[in-house]
Amino acid sequence: MSNITLKQAEEVLAAAKAKAVALNTLMNIAVVDSGTNLVAFAHMDDAWLGSIDIAQKKARTARYFNMPTGEIGKLSQPGGSLYNIEHSNGGLITFPGGVLIKNTAGEIIGAIGVSGDTVENDHAVAQAGADAIV
Amino acid sequence: MSNITLKQAEEVLAAAKAKAVALNTLMNIAVVDSGTNLVAFAHMDDAWLGSIDIAQKKARTARYFNMPTGEIGKLSQPGGSLYNIEHSNGGLITFPGGVLIKNTAGEIIGAIGVSGDTVENDHAVAQAGADAIV
Amino acid sequence: MSNITLKQAEEVLAAAKAKAVALNTLMNIAVVDSGTNLVAFAHMDDAWLGSIDIAQKKARTARYFNMPTGEIGKLSQPGGSLYNIEHSNGGLITFPGGVLIKNTAGEIIGAIGVSGDTVENDHAVAQAGADAIV
Amino acid sequence: MSNITLKQAEEVLAAAKAKAVALNTLMNIAVVDSGTNLVAFAHMDDAWLGSIDIAQKKARTARYFNMPTGEIGKLSQPGGSLYNIEHSNGGLITFPGGVLIKNTAGEIIGAIGVSGDTVENDHAVAQAGADAIV
Repeated sequence: MSNITLKQAEEVLAAAKAKAVALNTLMNIAVVDSGTNLVAFAHMDDAWLGSIDIAQKKARTARYFNMPTGEIGKLSQPGGSLYNIEHSNGGLITFPGGVLIKNTAGEIIGAIGVSGDTVENDHAVAQAGADAIV
Repeated sequence: MSNITLKQAEEVLAAAKAKAVALNTLMNIAVVDSGTNLVAFAHMDDAWLGSIDIAQKKARTARYFNMPTGEIGKLSQPGGSLYNIEHSNGGLITFPGGVLIKNTAGEIIGAIGVSGDTVENDHAVAQAGADAIV
Repeated sequence: MSNITLKQAEEVLAAAKAKAVALNTLMNIAVVDSGTNLVAFAHMDDAWLGSIDIAQKKARTARYFNMPTGEIGKLSQPGGSLYNIEHSNGGLITFPGGVLIKNTAGEIIGAIGVSGDTVENDHAVAQAGADAIV
Repeated sequence: MSNITLKQAEEVLAAAKAKAVALNTLMNIAVVDSGTNLVAFAHMDDAWLGSIDIAQKKARTARYFNMPTGEIGKLSQPGGSLYNIEHSNGGLITFPGGVLIKNTAGEIIGAIGVSGDTVENDHAVAQAGADAIV
């Protein structure tokens, strides 16, 4: 199993924060390793306090199922095949903002979760963070 | 960051209770500070016991995302962008009854959560409480 | 079952706060009813944040077993008959500061829990609160 | 109430990491604000995974009671006045490694929690982090 290093996680955080600034928004940003353990976190000043937990849950949710969180949310709706999967694992967050982090060989090394604005901006900031690993 | 004082919180409680009496209803009323910590609470005689927890969760939810709780509930419906956000932060309540408390300078100093009747009445009582800070 | 009213709980809070001021200390004060449900709460400005939870747990612990919390703590020590009883009921607090509230007929109507200073002061403030019901 | 900024929290993290390197050890480092909300976190490569949670609980514990975590642990021993206080607040950690962060005016603005080695080293790294605010 490959695993993200702290140095890489800090690069992910820096890229995500830069994207948040470019979007003129305030974010909470969490990076977990391939075992879903927290590696790095940043709460931008005055970002939503409720998003501290959500950012971490998004990062873990993405790695739990190896897909962007928004994909899981499509399946967890009423009548869907994964209805209310959010009750597992101490609480999942299944709307966009959680993205896998892969190394240049394409191996999963962790995930990033972002929360603080619209789900579109959350996802864009998370993707910018994940893209910092090159 | 500004923070509500106990004296202010007691004024908020008193105004909310007066509104509840005016509406001929029985409420649970919680006030949290800007860090989401409980500052003051009142359970009116014979008000719903299950609303003791809900009032506190409403107050925290409003401060977590800096908006009235009912606004979040519009987005957390099936198919909505924040579907099942209620699984975060140890449980959110996203229907009306949670309102931010601001000081005269417009700074957020805490939040009030009210539960015990229709969501319309819950919200009206919460708003009356928040409006006591002048 | 007799039960404390909000008016009585507010008198308990007021007496406890007056005692805290007299002792020149800052307290968190919780009052629960005879069913262990929260009735009233006050966090004095700058009192310990960790005592918000402890004050409530002390009040509930006193009513759970109908004795002052410190009595339970004598029995929950290593080798004691109630060793580690603190693991029950979502967490008990078994050092002093939780006291039963009785009406003038001697019936239990609730309990008060106080936290914020030494256990001696916590207990003194709790007792002052309970003694307000005459 | 004053509150730590992300920029300050990152300076705290950097100073703590530098101290950990100087001590040739691997640490988990958490910084919370004055409301006990997580602001920044770093898990050094190969540091103990179980310390991710402990570092956060130490930071919160220090702020909950406005003292170094080890001071609380002296009182929470069997027979001590705060025996089993660890059952409150969702779990406290009361051995050394949690330290308050104050600004130059002496106001509490947050706390740092460190876990990954002996409690002596944990505390030394936490203190080095707190001392970065000048």
